[in-house]
Amino acid sequence: MLNIGLLGAGRIGQVHARAIIAHPGSRLVAISDVVADSAEKLAATVGAEARSSQALLSDPSIDAVLIATSTDTHSDLMEAATAAGKAVLCEKPVDLSLERARACLKAVQATGKSVMIGFNRRFDPNFGALKAALKGGEIGKPELLAITSFDPAPPPVSYVKVSGGLFRDMMIHDFDMANFIMGEAPVSVSAVGSSIVDPAIGAAGDVDTAVVTMTYADGKIAVIKNSRRAVYGYDQRVELLGSEGLLQAQNILENSVVKSTTQGVTGAKPVLFFLERYMPAYKAEWAAFVDAVQSGGPMPVTLADGVAALVMAEAATRSVKTGAPVRLADLTGSRS
Amino acid sequence: MLNIGLLGAGRIGQVHARAIIAHPGSRLVAISDVVADSAEKLAATVGAEARSSQALLSDPSIDAVLIATSTDTHSDLMEAATAAGKAVLCEKPVDLSLERARACLKAVQATGKSVMIGFNRRFDPNFGALKAALKGGEIGKPELLAITSFDPAPPPVSYVKVSGGLFRDMMIHDFDMANFIMGEAPVSVSAVGSSIVDPAIGAAGDVDTAVVTMTYADGKIAVIKNSRRAVYGYDQRVELLGSEGLLQAQNILENSVVKSTTQGVTGAKPVLFFLERYMPAYKAEWAAFVDAVQSGGPMPVTLADGVAALVMAEAATRSVKTGAPVRLADLTGSRS
Amino acid sequence: MLNIGLLGAGRIGQVHARAIIAHPGSRLVAISDVVADSAEKLAATVGAEARSSQALLSDPSIDAVLIATSTDTHSDLMEAATAAGKAVLCEKPVDLSLERARACLKAVQATGKSVMIGFNRRFDPNFGALKAALKGGEIGKPELLAITSFDPAPPPVSYVKVSGGLFRDMMIHDFDMANFIMGEAPVSVSAVGSSIVDPAIGAAGDVDTAVVTMTYADGKIAVIKNSRRAVYGYDQRVELLGSEGLLQAQNILENSVVKSTTQGVTGAKPVLFFLERYMPAYKAEWAAFVDAVQSGGPMPVTLADGVAALVMAEAATRSVKTGAPVRLADLTGSRS
Amino acid sequence: MLNIGLLGAGRIGQVHARAIIAHPGSRLVAISDVVADSAEKLAATVGAEARSSQALLSDPSIDAVLIATSTDTHSDLMEAATAAGKAVLCEKPVDLSLERARACLKAVQATGKSVMIGFNRRFDPNFGALKAALKGGEIGKPELLAITSFDPAPPPVSYVKVSGGLFRDMMIHDFDMANFIMGEAPVSVSAVGSSIVDPAIGAAGDVDTAVVTMTYADGKIAVIKNSRRAVYGYDQRVELLGSEGLLQAQNILENSVVKSTTQGVTGAKPVLFFLERYMPAYKAEWAAFVDAVQSGGPMPVTLADGVAALVMAEAATRSVKTGAPVRLADLTGSRS
Repeated sequence: MLNIGLLGAGRIGQVHARAIIAHPGSRLVAISDVVADSAEKLAATVGAEARSSQALLSDPSIDAVLIATSTDTHSDLMEAATAAGKAVLCEKPVDLSLERARACLKAVQATGKSVMIGFNRRFDPNFGALKAALKGGEIGKPELLAITSFDPAPPPVSYVKVSGGLFRDMMIHDFDMANFIMGEAPVSVSAVGSSIVDPAIGAAGDVDTAVVTMTYADGKIAVIKNSRRAVYGYDQRVELLGSEGLLQAQNILENSVVKSTTQGVTGAKPVLFFLERYMPAYKAEWAAFVDAVQSGGPMPVTLADGVAALVMAEAATRSVKTGAPVRLADLTGSRS
Repeated sequence: MLNIGLLGAGRIGQVHARAIIAHPGSRLVAISDVVADSAEKLAATVGAEARSSQALLSDPSIDAVLIATSTDTHSDLMEAATAAGKAVLCEKPVDLSLERARACLKAVQATGKSVMIGFNRRFDPNFGALKAALKGGEIGKPELLAITSFDPAPPPVSYVKVSGGLFRDMMIHDFDMANFIMGEAPVSVSAVGSSIVDPAIGAAGDVDTAVVTMTYADGKIAVIKNSRRAVYGYDQRVELLGSEGLLQAQNILENSVVKSTTQGVTGAKPVLFFLERYMPAYKAEWAAFVDAVQSGGPMPVTLADGVAALVMAEAATRSVKTGAPVRLADLTGSRS
Repeated sequence: MLNIGLLGAGRIGQVHARAIIAHPGSRLVAISDVVADSAEKLAATVGAEARSSQALLSDPSIDAVLIATSTDTHSDLMEAATAAGKAVLCEKPVDLSLERARACLKAVQATGKSVMIGFNRRFDPNFGALKAALKGGEIGKPELLAITSFDPAPPPVSYVKVSGGLFRDMMIHDFDMANFIMGEAPVSVSAVGSSIVDPAIGAAGDVDTAVVTMTYADGKIAVIKNSRRAVYGYDQRVELLGSEGLLQAQNILENSVVKSTTQGVTGAKPVLFFLERYMPAYKAEWAAFVDAVQSGGPMPVTLADGVAALVMAEAATRSVKTGAPVRLADLTGSRS
Repeated sequence: MLNIGLLGAGRIGQVHARAIIAHPGSRLVAISDVVADSAEKLAATVGAEARSSQALLSDPSIDAVLIATSTDTHSDLMEAATAAGKAVLCEKPVDLSLERARACLKAVQATGKSVMIGFNRRFDPNFGALKAALKGGEIGKPELLAITSFDPAPPPVSYVKVSGGLFRDMMIHDFDMANFIMGEAPVSVSAVGSSIVDPAIGAAGDVDTAVVTMTYADGKIAVIKNSRRAVYGYDQRVELLGSEGLLQAQNILENSVVKSTTQGVTGAKPVLFFLERYMPAYKAEWAAFVDAVQSGGPMPVTLADGVAALVMAEAATRSVKTGAPVRLADLTGSRS
């Protein structure tokens, strides 16, 4: 039985709290939040204790922590938690600053403790089935990957201003999905974007609609489409052309009812948003983390994976500004 | 908070135990089973106490019981539990004997306590959406209902011998679904059946493939198709033609991945069997029961509903033997 | 090159005229119709000659005739045409009177000439693919066949009065489809029906909604659903459960566009009616007839097939009145 | 009745010949081909006369010509035919040389005669329905267009060497489709490509897999995916995200049969290639041309449209080499 501390009692923290409780191998012991009241409320609901993050991290009975705080605290908390000997599951993105993320990776590696980054979509059973079919050789060698990822509605501009932008807060998931499916990082990243959904997003320096094209060393190509607004629901599809076929992971619908009238043949919409869509993925993600900690095996998604996706987000951010493709090697080179 | 006693710790009892535990308004206090060991094992897992059914029923702290025992004990236990003042949720079918079921209904009504029959499919969100669309007038008036209900594999012949036969143990769900959707019972029932899947089932006096046609007072028609074997999975579909359109509740698939190769375009199979397919329904069923008990409102599926489905199963059983349609009024008449 | 005479210049005759002209192996030479004007108009369009049916049949240069006249003339014309040495393709149904149809069959057989009955759906590429998959063993042995066949709108009551009724003018296609797929005739036929779509149809002695169940010697079962009204279009589906799988021939849609909005995910309706749906089938039917005539091989659908479907329609007509199943052997027996 | 001359008796010329013959308003009078034998064979089949192209163009009884010759002759023939006073339907692309195409456009405009370019996909009923839905305001304003266009198998390298490359011979259709749907040309074009399907294609200086991203003045974005190989068939899909919904034109399948077995739920593949897929489009294209000529109205696809698509192909060809986006204004500027 793993004793767990939860850092962050916001919306996503609450999702994780439920997964921790439901898992037979983990016990939610303590919760902290910068808003103490939030921590207390959640703790009361789930039978845990509200504490400061320091008290939580220094408690030797806690085996692992889940970091679901605001992004700007991720690196500090990962460093502190691993230094305190905890296994860590941290929400994405690692950081908004690539430099800080890389420093964090170095510091964490020095502690010898494992960190998993919460790219929950890797645990979605549909994308998992696609990946399994690819690995099983069912479509031969991968050639052309296309990811469609649309949110139902744009966030408030206030969020856009602090989120790091579409590439770091939204497409970061798709960058990781590309890495997950392709099994490697691209060589170059080329982005176009606009604020056609909401000009205020553009005024805040971000885009709300974007297409990113990526090339790979062996000639593979990937393309990611993002929009902040798909009024019909959360649109999450992956499509991979291979030398012997095509794989498509399609949307999950609200129900299976189809109505035929003089107006046409109408089915249900995709499930509304990420909580509905990825609830099984959150559970599977937590189970994979518990397994890895208990077995001492490697994390299924590493901190290095988190940094890799951040590099791609950084490249896309630059590309959309300059209009030119960005080679990842150049980003890496600028670090050394 | 409702204190619950569970009678029956078999497969379906275990499913219910999970739903009871997961519901914030119910607490699983005690479990009984004719095999004491089964009760103890399950009780240990869920933090409840194993008891005899008598001890359980006589415990005044228990508010409600869930009956998930073998069918031949249902009537006795419903009578005993309601006599003991408990609210009851009892698995289908009410009984194999229509006469016994009617006696039970009378006895239960005398206690003034509520009994809900576990026709879980009424709580399936897909069938629920179909019913809601019908009630919302989206296809006008219902005219022709078709229910397809195939199990993935036939049960052992030993089960067939004690189950009451396909119409009472399998199609009983579809009879109730027809009543649920049509909002009334049919006037006559006509059945054909054969044992084309497994001759041993025929030798045991049952059928494994059957089609039942039902007519209604106002001219509506319903048809139910059952097979004990659909090798591709659990096939559960409902289709309703109305004066202004068609509603179809289609299968739930294992995942959303589609593969296109030289062999064709292949999607996932329907989920394998009733536990996967109806898990959300079991949870919703339990929530509806808790709601009804707590609010004192009417049960969403009554013991009378259970008897009504049994009457249809009885009619179909007779029809398949005589080859002639059976009027439900005759069955009712024959009782008095 | 086959020289063809067309008897009947109505709607279906015009459809056939186009198929005859388009086929490189057939030439439309002459056309007759009881309304001479209709024959002349069509003849002018297609470069043929308008004649009386007698003149047409006595012309030795005409190799084959297509009979697309009203049903009550079918038997007489088949007899006359075969007596005149012509090969014949005759529209369904053979006759409204089973007795007359049987006499016609005997007379035609005496001429030694071939007659094909126009069950065009056998030539639909979708049903053909289903049949081919069955024959290829892709779902093992057939067990349970379900045919859904809904017209978009009911015909005028005046038509119903002379059509022979739903079973003879509409479900006759489905009876033949069952024979085509099952490869044999059923043992018994059981029908229910009502006039829930239009009470005037009931007043005229017919039904507009019907379900027919059929049993086969080896335990197979078939069920046919008919409605005169499906407001969303022409609904033509076939579904066959076998020991190793399920085959479904689904509707053909007007186009492939799908629209996702806040209202749901909407695709196109099925194509409106039989001309749109079965145009490829009419062409393939004609090609199959030309092939058979030219090769001297057997007709792909025989006059006996036409009589067999008529027997089933007769049985269903009786069953819907008596409420009891009708054994085909009894119908056959009652004749001798 | 329009008298038509056909220039080019190859595969696509034969397709057009059939459409010309089948149309009640056009008569195929003469056919020419550099291989005289080809012209004679086709002429014999369709009842036309084989001639030299000069003889054909100088025949005053010929109203319009269809140019289906090799691409390098298009410009010369368009100029000659319009100079001879013919209306022209010319296969795409206009030319491999953008400069030559522009000169041709100028020359043709000077004659005052109309030229239509054969972008047949504009006449596909599915893409037409998508466009109509967009124009009808059904998804609000367009924001993000994605076109998927995969051929079933790569052409021989010998073809690649003379075709002008993937962007000019294959994606040219998709560039025109983007213009058709978006209703305007993009501002910039950015391309990536590789020869992952067949290295010999790369050795010949072309790509076989490519993604092109295009931006529009108002912030709209379009992305086109091409592959020379989709082993499951001809994959032709269009998807448009708008402010109020999503439109998708999906593939046309070989038939509507779905098979469910232990292996999954399998439907038919997309129809194999462009002749099957776009046969209705070829017919509708011809009808639109005949209409325009007879009514004197504007051509539904103009020579200027053909040049516009060629500009985009030129831009993509440059972009894939330089790795940088190409502004169409720069291409236009370089001309002056």
